[in-house]
Amino acid sequence: MTPLDMLKKINSMAAFNRWCGIEVTHAEPGDVTIEIEWRDDFGQYSGFLHAGLIGTLIDTACGYAAATVAGPNLLASNYSVNCLRPATGEKFIARARVIKPGKSQVFTACDLFALDGDGEKLVANGQTLLTVLPTA
Amino acid sequence: MTPLDMLKKINSMAAFNRWCGIEVTHAEPGDVTIEIEWRDDFGQYSGFLHAGLIGTLIDTACGYAAATVAGPNLLASNYSVNCLRPATGEKFIARARVIKPGKSQVFTACDLFALDGDGEKLVANGQTLLTVLPTA
Amino acid sequence: MTPLDMLKKINSMAAFNRWCGIEVTHAEPGDVTIEIEWRDDFGQYSGFLHAGLIGTLIDTACGYAAATVAGPNLLASNYSVNCLRPATGEKFIARARVIKPGKSQVFTACDLFALDGDGEKLVANGQTLLTVLPTA
Amino acid sequence: MTPLDMLKKINSMAAFNRWCGIEVTHAEPGDVTIEIEWRDDFGQYSGFLHAGLIGTLIDTACGYAAATVAGPNLLASNYSVNCLRPATGEKFIARARVIKPGKSQVFTACDLFALDGDGEKLVANGQTLLTVLPTA
Repeated sequence: MTPLDMLKKINSMAAFNRWCGIEVTHAEPGDVTIEIEWRDDFGQYSGFLHAGLIGTLIDTACGYAAATVAGPNLLASNYSVNCLRPATGEKFIARARVIKPGKSQVFTACDLFALDGDGEKLVANGQTLLTVLPTA
Repeated sequence: MTPLDMLKKINSMAAFNRWCGIEVTHAEPGDVTIEIEWRDDFGQYSGFLHAGLIGTLIDTACGYAAATVAGPNLLASNYSVNCLRPATGEKFIARARVIKPGKSQVFTACDLFALDGDGEKLVANGQTLLTVLPTA
Repeated sequence: MTPLDMLKKINSMAAFNRWCGIEVTHAEPGDVTIEIEWRDDFGQYSGFLHAGLIGTLIDTACGYAAATVAGPNLLASNYSVNCLRPATGEKFIARARVIKPGKSQVFTACDLFALDGDGEKLVANGQTLLTVLPTA
Repeated sequence: MTPLDMLKKINSMAAFNRWCGIEVTHAEPGDVTIEIEWRDDFGQYSGFLHAGLIGTLIDTACGYAAATVAGPNLLASNYSVNCLRPATGEKFIARARVIKPGKSQVFTACDLFALDGDGEKLVANGQTLLTVLPTA
């Protein structure tokens, strides 16, 4: 199974990812891209993409990047999000990478871009620290 | 307008908060509680509350706590989330507090509890740093 | 050996802690206090306590709190610091606590107070996530 | 005054930076490098570079990168540090960059490398969020 096929399968198992319409569009070892199309029910009180969904995309993309090097038995211990600009666009693209793989934990980082008629702009970034679960 | 009424009004303006079913149940200056009832479409791949929704609750409760001392013209600059235990329960309760108010930024923190038949347990905590927007 | 004696011993083994003059003044399971006296060579460019030393105190106190519940074989994976107010005073007191102990990682948090003639004020807070090292 | 001259001047005003022996070796808009030589009094209890000094280098380099785009009237609001590998080496090099400049805050990031006979290795990374102080 390719990394992309593995991640598409995991992604289809998460009910909230299905609701968001998250698609895994690129995966190679240590490097993953996911995307969503804007919908009105994603909005915070001013109509921008809700910070909780910004975090969802960053944490999800980081977890998938970690899974390409450490397998799927992972849990996020900590994640953090910087909201750099108002997040508005037709599509949102999260590109995550592994910073440091390890036996017990994996450090990752992610940039989130908004896409509209003017092209891509960086709207947020963040990181996730994942713990590798012991295999039974 | 009481702090609770102000927050209920803001909360009703955010489409994603409405989808999540977030309710503001307590608000006094610097101290806010919000809650959601578990639904199956909130799940990550193992069926626990998705880390993105954990972040949604923490960031939202923190923002509301900040709004009780600085008014609603705020944007989250940074938030971070610690996933302490698998987040399972019938209801999730986020209790946020202002750590340090200021003219240009407000520091906040939040604990997230899961409620089931055995009572409450702490499943996550986190913090948000909010920027006070200049008034026009 | 009491927790306080264990921590005093560990503290004496760290060259930088000795240079800072860090003293462990309180330790019980999950709860530790350390202190330093202000010296002019601790200053940043305005003469406040340097943010790097704020982080030193927070990370050190958190690590010691974790050691009271998990033993000394720990490494900090991640720590973060909020600079809440200009850090000026005659003495600085860091009070750390364990938020969630675990077999493979320990979540901790810390408040940093400055002490002068007017009493204590909270100048910073932060958190550290520690990894428990496998024993040989 | 070039950015490098400005930063060397600021760096010389901070007592703790002088004690650490921090040198600013590169500065252009949004991009700064600082370095220190290892000394035995920098050690934590196992003799690695103390996490507090890792944070010192990351926070300092980030602040200097921000100063190249926003001037020196800045204060760190929040910084975070990932300890990726044991930090041992003859020299430590922190390379910081501005992620997003702004009128009221500047987002920055930094990588910390250890240098020894085998070349450079990444030992830590981190980020700082700086607040631009109003000019009097």
